[in-house]
Amino acid sequence: MIWCRFQRGETIGYGRVVDDEVIEVEGSPVTAPDYNPKETGTTYALGEVRLLAPIIPPMLYAAGPNHRGHVEGMARRRGAEPNYPKFPEPNFRSVHAIIGAEANIVVPADSTGAVQPEGQLAVVLGKHARKVSSRDEALDCVFGYTIGNDISERVWQGGDRTMFRGKNCDTFKPLGPWIVTGLPYDGFRIIVRHNGEVWEDFTSAEQIWDVPTWIMELSKYTTLHPGDVLWMGTQGADGDMFPGDTIEVEISGIGTLRNYIVAE
Amino acid sequence: MIWCRFQRGETIGYGRVVDDEVIEVEGSPVTAPDYNPKETGTTYALGEVRLLAPIIPPMLYAAGPNHRGHVEGMARRRGAEPNYPKFPEPNFRSVHAIIGAEANIVVPADSTGAVQPEGQLAVVLGKHARKVSSRDEALDCVFGYTIGNDISERVWQGGDRTMFRGKNCDTFKPLGPWIVTGLPYDGFRIIVRHNGEVWEDFTSAEQIWDVPTWIMELSKYTTLHPGDVLWMGTQGADGDMFPGDTIEVEISGIGTLRNYIVAE
Repeated sequence: MIWCRFQRGETIGYGRVVDDEVIEVEGSPVTAPDYNPKETGTTYALGEVRLLAPIIPPMLYAAGPNHRGHVEGMARRRGAEPNYPKFPEPNFRSVHAIIGAEANIVVPADSTGAVQPEGQLAVVLGKHARKVSSRDEALDCVFGYTIGNDISERVWQGGDRTMFRGKNCDTFKPLGPWIVTGLPYDGFRIIVRHNGEVWEDFTSAEQIWDVPTWIMELSKYTTLHPGDVLWMGTQGADGDMFPGDTIEVEISGIGTLRNYIVAE
Repeated sequence: MIWCRFQRGETIGYGRVVDDEVIEVEGSPVTAPDYNPKETGTTYALGEVRLLAPIIPPMLYAAGPNHRGHVEGMARRRGAEPNYPKFPEPNFRSVHAIIGAEANIVVPADSTGAVQPEGQLAVVLGKHARKVSSRDEALDCVFGYTIGNDISERVWQGGDRTMFRGKNCDTFKPLGPWIVTGLPYDGFRIIVRHNGEVWEDFTSAEQIWDVPTWIMELSKYTTLHPGDVLWMGTQGADGDMFPGDTIEVEISGIGTLRNYIVAE
């Protein structure tokens, strides 16, 4: 199933997408009993609503370096040897930086210009869980999958003490266009297109640690909550984006997350 | 005024604390019109309720090194020269790690034992704001103040790639006991007591950057949201805590945040 969050006029709603229609439901499916929110009886044409990020999570986790290609590309950028992660440990991203599909990514006026995309598989968790001890139990915690673009200002990312402005400026966390349930965790192809040109084309099979491993590792130290989102990392280290550019992340079985670069 | 969040039986409520009573209100004061939620008509004796963390913020920001003493103490620990921060940039903490006063801090079974306190002033924001351009406007964004204890596993903090398990294990973020409004931002004395012995005794005047400066700097890149919480950093680098210990952070005009160390 495909679940979206949308805006129509002043109202924000949730819905199930079927063909070109949105069947409105009462509240988020993630926290509804059996993931099955009641229908309101209202249906909209998909073109009548503006899709928002499908969820604003309590915690947005980022796997960070979870593809060898990204570790190697970032090392080349620094002129250093690649430093592969030793075990899965996440960083956090600001939930206030989340925007939906078709929204603008705003480059801060004082940016150095090194604003780059990172197309990522995004895992939406659906359950409270701690000390998850098997891969099956981990996968049972997954509500569905969507797409993230971990926009990064590389000079700030490399030079600052924290990743606050390097990764978390307002609009730097595109998420969407919707959440798809029932997909296998290991069969995704991820394509990043800059102004229509393919910048990255990789698969979830190239992850250093896969979805169930990450869920088990996170839950060793923290309780997973329904609605938490985990971004699974990207493959490449790409070029800079400038105002006027269009950036797309397409993931097989999910859809395309398209956003536009604008100046502040 | 003093605002709390509490549990009584299965119910979670909010209230205003007056002497030894809690006057229950409808929902959080932070998001109520004019910070003035309606009273429900019910009053409890303070002893009848269990105080919870007064707020679960959308984003929990930590100033990190914001006192020279802390930068110097952590440098001595590493045998390195102190590396003072160049400008105010926050890190993020997990909101899932938040607990209230009188709750247990659980030391993970695989901890190295280097679990230490960091008593901190906690600023609760009350408004949406971006590009805050004056100190007066910044202070107008403050709803009130409470107390944080930034529990840190120093070996994990120093050796891991991220601060995930070093700072964000379940129960590692005590916050409370309540939020006090109407206090000046620069007049706080902060005392950390370990089993009754004073480990730290410092003031907010020793901060490298003060509350309005932090609010202005954060808002350069991110929109502040009502309920966001900013921890202002600590002075010392203290000793280890072990199961059976009691840790208290007292801040003048606010109260005392007391928690107990237990083994997993």
